[in-house]
Amino acid sequence: MAQSTLDQVIALAKRRGFVFQAGEIYGGSRSAWDYGPLGTELKENIKREWWQTFVRGREDMVGLDSSIILPKAVWEASGHVATFTDPLVECLHCHKRHREDHLVEAFEAKKGRAPESMAEVVCPDCGTRGEWTEPQLFSGLMKTYLGPVDSEAGLHFMRPETAQGIFVNFKNVLQTSRKKPPFGIGQIGKAFRNEITPGNFIFRTREFEQMEIEFFTPPADAATWFDRWVEDCWNWFVDLGIDPANMRRFDVPEDERAHYSAGTIDFEYRFGFSGSEWGELMGVANRTDFDLASHARASGVDLSYLDPSTNERYTPYVIEPSFGLTRSMMAFLVDAYREDEAPNTKGGVDTRTVLALDPRLAPVKAAVLPLSRNERLSPVAHDLASELRRRWNIELDETQAIGKRYRRQDEIGTPFCVTVDFDTLDDQAVTVRERDTMAQERVALDRVADYLAERLGR
Amino acid sequence: MAQSTLDQVIALAKRRGFVFQAGEIYGGSRSAWDYGPLGTELKENIKREWWQTFVRGREDMVGLDSSIILPKAVWEASGHVATFTDPLVECLHCHKRHREDHLVEAFEAKKGRAPESMAEVVCPDCGTRGEWTEPQLFSGLMKTYLGPVDSEAGLHFMRPETAQGIFVNFKNVLQTSRKKPPFGIGQIGKAFRNEITPGNFIFRTREFEQMEIEFFTPPADAATWFDRWVEDCWNWFVDLGIDPANMRRFDVPEDERAHYSAGTIDFEYRFGFSGSEWGELMGVANRTDFDLASHARASGVDLSYLDPSTNERYTPYVIEPSFGLTRSMMAFLVDAYREDEAPNTKGGVDTRTVLALDPRLAPVKAAVLPLSRNERLSPVAHDLASELRRRWNIELDETQAIGKRYRRQDEIGTPFCVTVDFDTLDDQAVTVRERDTMAQERVALDRVADYLAERLGR
Repeated sequence: MAQSTLDQVIALAKRRGFVFQAGEIYGGSRSAWDYGPLGTELKENIKREWWQTFVRGREDMVGLDSSIILPKAVWEASGHVATFTDPLVECLHCHKRHREDHLVEAFEAKKGRAPESMAEVVCPDCGTRGEWTEPQLFSGLMKTYLGPVDSEAGLHFMRPETAQGIFVNFKNVLQTSRKKPPFGIGQIGKAFRNEITPGNFIFRTREFEQMEIEFFTPPADAATWFDRWVEDCWNWFVDLGIDPANMRRFDVPEDERAHYSAGTIDFEYRFGFSGSEWGELMGVANRTDFDLASHARASGVDLSYLDPSTNERYTPYVIEPSFGLTRSMMAFLVDAYREDEAPNTKGGVDTRTVLALDPRLAPVKAAVLPLSRNERLSPVAHDLASELRRRWNIELDETQAIGKRYRRQDEIGTPFCVTVDFDTLDDQAVTVRERDTMAQERVALDRVADYLAERLGR
Repeated sequence: MAQSTLDQVIALAKRRGFVFQAGEIYGGSRSAWDYGPLGTELKENIKREWWQTFVRGREDMVGLDSSIILPKAVWEASGHVATFTDPLVECLHCHKRHREDHLVEAFEAKKGRAPESMAEVVCPDCGTRGEWTEPQLFSGLMKTYLGPVDSEAGLHFMRPETAQGIFVNFKNVLQTSRKKPPFGIGQIGKAFRNEITPGNFIFRTREFEQMEIEFFTPPADAATWFDRWVEDCWNWFVDLGIDPANMRRFDVPEDERAHYSAGTIDFEYRFGFSGSEWGELMGVANRTDFDLASHARASGVDLSYLDPSTNERYTPYVIEPSFGLTRSMMAFLVDAYREDEAPNTKGGVDTRTVLALDPRLAPVKAAVLPLSRNERLSPVAHDLASELRRRWNIELDETQAIGKRYRRQDEIGTPFCVTVDFDTLDDQAVTVRERDTMAQERVALDRVADYLAERLGR
């Protein structure tokens, strides 16, 4: 996939209102992005599919929605206060700070080898070569203060992962949900990391969304569940349309794993970044009993499980499939982007842009298009759109030529266009056009909802 | 509604895993609450109904999902840095700080009159009377720092309302969505306020969720749209089951309104708090052109609208219906709570607890109950549950007597219990029991999904 595809997707996402720069009218920020009308629907559809597949649809899963801000004690026990840090170096010339590992990666991507020392590395801000401070550790946790004074007692951290909210509620869920290991808890929500160098569009941001599962198993079964979850996660992406040729697994070596992990497989997607094409999409980690044991030690609360059938007591191992929601959205967009040819009204062909999104993910399910602005067509179109809106996100577009309107829907991935024309007034039927094949079919007005329901998946 | 109903709802919510105290194993916090499996589903259902009614289902609305953290410039322009403050007084004896207005309200609730001065007011922490500092203004904004150093340049605030994310994206949405005033933008998301005295369960917390609409209208139509939105919001609650006798409108007098409002109607719900029974559920405000004009001035970006049909340029007025999501959830729970009598197996009657939630909101749509643990009933029950899980959140419960299992489902509001019994093996049918009437009906196994679909609303 050429870099230009990524650039085209980013341009499309901004132009059509999938994604806006946060605080754009004030100069914008790379820390976060805002999701416009289409991006919000697409993101919501991804969440819903994920929740249905991995939480509601499974007997061995339940959901949770825990708070973003948690007291310092939680992050001390989890190891984040001590180890969630990155080495920073400062340019002695311009005094800008950078992550040392990112500078080294950029050097490698350009030169094809690692630098022998920082003396070879040029400051990306001012161009000075090799004038760096010694690296200093910098916390990726974002802090805030609760209560009437900014004091140590009020110091709280915003979660850098949703996972810890699950671990600290493990006992509550166990007691109230009547589940027992092997079972899991799923959560979707925001997380915050003070990234030094946010970038690559919505790929690396300081505010982002995760979809995480913590699956609790008897220690002896952890390896089996790890493998199953890797398969289930892979299949979820492929089922929703990701081309397996654009996804790969990376078995993370021990020295690159997070502090809690005894084994991690990352899924990487071929985003097409300049330098390295591939970027991390999600990871499945074997967190062992690290988290439950740490929280049990720090809180003094027993987080072990007594299996009534064997009378054995154990602290469950945790298999964690952790998805980046916004990264998933970016992958679905890049994977769906294509250009092909469509007939134009002059008997020739035009290039058209299509987002071949799975209908379950498409932000708009159908567009209702009155053939022309006309006082007899318009009410029929509006009535039909109102009826369809009871179940789906629908657009009604009555401006410009019909071919232009088809193109507008194609490039945002709308699976069906429904045209109300002058024949409709006689035959009470409409023309339904399918996005990918451009095939058209005449459908009775009172059958349109059923016609769509049969083809939209959910 | 007696206070005991509220206490019973809170106890039920904790016992059955609707709501847990955040960080409970570390001593807990009143700042925020975590939503367990049932609370997460209920909250999700409320969101989905709201989004369908007010965003997806309306031709004049689109959705947005903007970031939580925004730069200081946004909050200066919005007026929050200057005016989002509360007067704090400190007890000279124990040095605890309190909101002066909350102390006065508590005094009024107890004595039936306002205190003549703070000299009459007793410290709720140490009991000392009337030894208070002069009030000092305290900001309700929570701050955090982005970037490699805690500097003024990195100072950001967490949003105290989702609204500002909509205003700063007004122009982007206008340009990309092909909407024109009157139209609105809806958003659901977290907001954060550094409340001095969080309390009343999930009613007043520092981390909470809002569902907000900013509806942009020509200034001349603002009053009409204000009235329409008040009606639409009222009807939404009533349609989803809130008893109108437990809800009232409060026309907020000028000196109590937020700094941006030219008129506000609050909806209050009879939560049954001790002291004052009623609490604010949501509000509809006429924000005039305050926000768009302020942001246009501060950012230098033109946020006016040129109406192509009249060639008039104006800055739209904004009508804002702002819902507390977690408060709405609490109101739906309190309103649905009832105790009635149900026949027991001994020919007598037992008191049963029922959450008479609208089926669209119920966290579990149906429970599948094999009559007894049995190797022939169990696979039939699991197969049926798996089939139903493709569309709904389903529980399968096979422990204890059937009457006990009915009670467990009644008190979490499950509309239907589906019992698989020994006759099922012969007649391929099950007994479906409805929650409120307790009426039972025999339904063919292969018709259960359709039977539920007809009765569950969505």
